[in-house]
Amino acid sequence: MKLGEEQIKDRLSRLADWRREGDWLTRDLKFENFKAALEFVNRVADEAEDMDHHPDILIHGWNNVRLSVTTHSEGGLTEKDFKLAERINALV
Amino acid sequence: MKLGEEQIKDRLSRLADWRREGDWLTRDLKFENFKAALEFVNRVADEAEDMDHHPDILIHGWNNVRLSVTTHSEGGLTEKDFKLAERINALV
Repeated sequence: MKLGEEQIKDRLSRLADWRREGDWLTRDLKFENFKAALEFVNRVADEAEDMDHHPDILIHGWNNVRLSVTTHSEGGLTEKDFKLAERINALV
Repeated sequence: MKLGEEQIKDRLSRLADWRREGDWLTRDLKFENFKAALEFVNRVADEAEDMDHHPDILIHGWNNVRLSVTTHSEGGLTEKDFKLAERINALV
């Protein structure tokens, strides 16, 4: 179920390093090199597959990764998005 | 060395499935699922590491991949970009 504005603000206040961009949560990360960025992406992918909830993943400028999560089927942010963000934070 | 307009047009006419977007070459691909998209990305990454030339890679909507290549150091498209695009095409 899509979260309301107050619920989103509450959960975002307890989630480090992500920002809200409309219906999306976004986190930017920088790595030592392309290989390290890709390894991280593969670990994110394992979490995503485990949750059956898949972020958009952009590898750019050879060592930067941008992750964006939303729940298309609900048309906005859900508990699942915050859960995935927390699981990704645990990888860093 | 940055390619001129005529050189770019010539090379693009012989390169399947990529389009030009300003100083970038871009290709969009769709896969059966997230896992297949990620496996492809890892194969692209092997080519990129081998050439020491790294595309921007976007995995989006769980089964789509967008690849974008340019040569930042030359401020535009070079032979290396077309070479990488060809090597990526050979993976598909």
